[in-house]
Amino acid sequence: MRDVAIIGIGMTEFGELWEKSFRELVAEAGVRAIMDAGIEGEEIDAMYIGGMSSGMFVGQEHVGPLAVEVAGLEDLHIPATRVEGACASGGIALHQGYISVASGMYDIVVVGGAEKMTDVAGGSATNILASASDREWEAFFGATFPGLYALMATYHMHKYGTTPEQLASVAVKNHYNGSTNPKAQFKRKITVEDVLKSPLVADPLHLLDCSPVSDGAAAAILAPVEVAKKYTDKLVRIKASAMACDTLSLHGRERFDALPAAIHAAKKAYEKAGVGPKDIDLAEVHDCFTIAEIIAIEDLGFVERGRGGPATEEGITSLHGEIPVNTSGGLKSKGHPVGATGIAQLNEIVLQLRGEAGERQVKDAQIGLTHNVGGSGGTAVVNIMEVI
Amino acid sequence: MRDVAIIGIGMTEFGELWEKSFRELVAEAGVRAIMDAGIEGEEIDAMYIGGMSSGMFVGQEHVGPLAVEVAGLEDLHIPATRVEGACASGGIALHQGYISVASGMYDIVVVGGAEKMTDVAGGSATNILASASDREWEAFFGATFPGLYALMATYHMHKYGTTPEQLASVAVKNHYNGSTNPKAQFKRKITVEDVLKSPLVADPLHLLDCSPVSDGAAAAILAPVEVAKKYTDKLVRIKASAMACDTLSLHGRERFDALPAAIHAAKKAYEKAGVGPKDIDLAEVHDCFTIAEIIAIEDLGFVERGRGGPATEEGITSLHGEIPVNTSGGLKSKGHPVGATGIAQLNEIVLQLRGEAGERQVKDAQIGLTHNVGGSGGTAVVNIMEVI
Repeated sequence: MRDVAIIGIGMTEFGELWEKSFRELVAEAGVRAIMDAGIEGEEIDAMYIGGMSSGMFVGQEHVGPLAVEVAGLEDLHIPATRVEGACASGGIALHQGYISVASGMYDIVVVGGAEKMTDVAGGSATNILASASDREWEAFFGATFPGLYALMATYHMHKYGTTPEQLASVAVKNHYNGSTNPKAQFKRKITVEDVLKSPLVADPLHLLDCSPVSDGAAAAILAPVEVAKKYTDKLVRIKASAMACDTLSLHGRERFDALPAAIHAAKKAYEKAGVGPKDIDLAEVHDCFTIAEIIAIEDLGFVERGRGGPATEEGITSLHGEIPVNTSGGLKSKGHPVGATGIAQLNEIVLQLRGEAGERQVKDAQIGLTHNVGGSGGTAVVNIMEVI
Repeated sequence: MRDVAIIGIGMTEFGELWEKSFRELVAEAGVRAIMDAGIEGEEIDAMYIGGMSSGMFVGQEHVGPLAVEVAGLEDLHIPATRVEGACASGGIALHQGYISVASGMYDIVVVGGAEKMTDVAGGSATNILASASDREWEAFFGATFPGLYALMATYHMHKYGTTPEQLASVAVKNHYNGSTNPKAQFKRKITVEDVLKSPLVADPLHLLDCSPVSDGAAAAILAPVEVAKKYTDKLVRIKASAMACDTLSLHGRERFDALPAAIHAAKKAYEKAGVGPKDIDLAEVHDCFTIAEIIAIEDLGFVERGRGGPATEEGITSLHGEIPVNTSGGLKSKGHPVGATGIAQLNEIVLQLRGEAGERQVKDAQIGLTHNVGGSGGTAVVNIMEVI
């Protein structure tokens, strides 16, 4: 397998983007990444596009040819594949793109993700998102994603003494980080009190414990390291890319205080990269709910099991802490257009590793990690990137 | 890249399967393929599952973990990726599975496809299928798939003199073939007169020019040839797998009498396999409408451009003709659960190459081809298999 580098990144602003259609989001993110890489469209060999449910959100499946068409690359007839693993769809696009370049199959590959969630005519976003859970055994009986993560939060509180204030501290940190990110949906700082006073969505999760419904797209350009050197001297390499799955349903899982798929993907990624949690300088993790970030930093080994809440409260994961987590603002503040999230996480890590993150730059960042989860943990993708 | 073999196949019956849920279809096809291969579930390294729109059809996205769960493989945490390219989703699953084994990434990989289309509560199957066309520039203005293919048929008739009787002869042949296939949705023979007397759906396409709405699933097990020899001595190898895309919209296409993506995918597949159209002993092609098969046999080079109609009428593509096409009954008679179709085509080719196709066995079949199309030609996948 060949070494793979990221030679370009691009993303739209995340938010309620009423003036931009799904195809415009796809086009904008793709063009930004192509321009950042400094490549010609004709050099692209293939595309992998992550999307959870453009079918239900905007009535459009078959997103591969749509991406080819908006990029004006139809005459090249390049293969463009949509991949789906709920909210991990972007991470899967990166993983499949990585395999296709590492294997020698392709040289220049676009990986992307897009979702337009706010302009839904029939049904609600919550109901569409429930299609990432087990429709027959969870959603039909009334379970929603806030509900499923609330179950995990309750168990974590029971088992480890995690408090509502600790959950809230995740949101406070991520809003602080997002306040300096021009792409973020919410650029305002909040307090623990704000979170605890916001309406309960599913006890113990308040509105401000939940990531929002968002529109947005993100893209990146991959190339073998040898080819990448032609385009840039700010080389960021993918050290490892690992994906793992579990049961679709939460109730089928072996444990509820962790996401076994994420533990498994992280283990594979660390092994492949030859590094451990202590070597990671910063991470973008899947904080769809505040409890999800607490479990994520435990699953990734950044803190001991059960210490996620206190560690966050102590500032270990804050911008200037031991291991900055979600410097972009995370899903919570940056926004969570589900199919785009995995690639948006990659955008942030590449910005940081290149030293281009401005106000929120982590000093001397050399190795960064992304952690992208589908559903309640049915899919997990962990990628480790480093400056070379 | 390593040589890849197919060591097991399995599929459900296709049809209106009211008594079987989506997950039961996935489980049945998978278990049949695993049993056919004679492997243990624990040997599986990864899965690729093709599905067009289980989100809209049954409210279920995130099909990867669902497949892992129904297979009882959650403790292995293997990666299971859903891929989507409308009606070419199954072909894409095969293509991605092929890349993952050929590259050395995985050894034993399950590729599958599934769709449950007949039991739709909200909206119609026709509307859901229209999400494979360009929603904003085709479907919103009333274009349906019968309508889009009717435009292609009208143009083909105008340019080459193709007749309604020649279109009908595709359906007659495929129903004849399907009448001997126990898995087929329609097992009855029909006549040219039956087709021409059936109601017009979109002029010049009659009801019996159209493939049906179906439920069903199909699966296959891939392995490197060296590993495959442990499991079977009936070795079928993938000589080539190629995928190509085009504009999503029909009106954006450079020509209407052909599918440029299919021409491109076929060219790549022939080059890679080192064979030409004359070397192919039989083919399963994407006859979503009768005109689609006529264009397909021209795009694949089995007959000269414009000769698809007369050639079919003359019996060149019939079971005992020069190049038997759709011996399974094709999409027209076997049924077309869209995500499953590409893998069902592979099932037929493997049966034939193993000499296990019973009444419809093609004599001395050594090389077989599958041709799987998404939408009006936005995606095409061509695979070439041979006995070794």
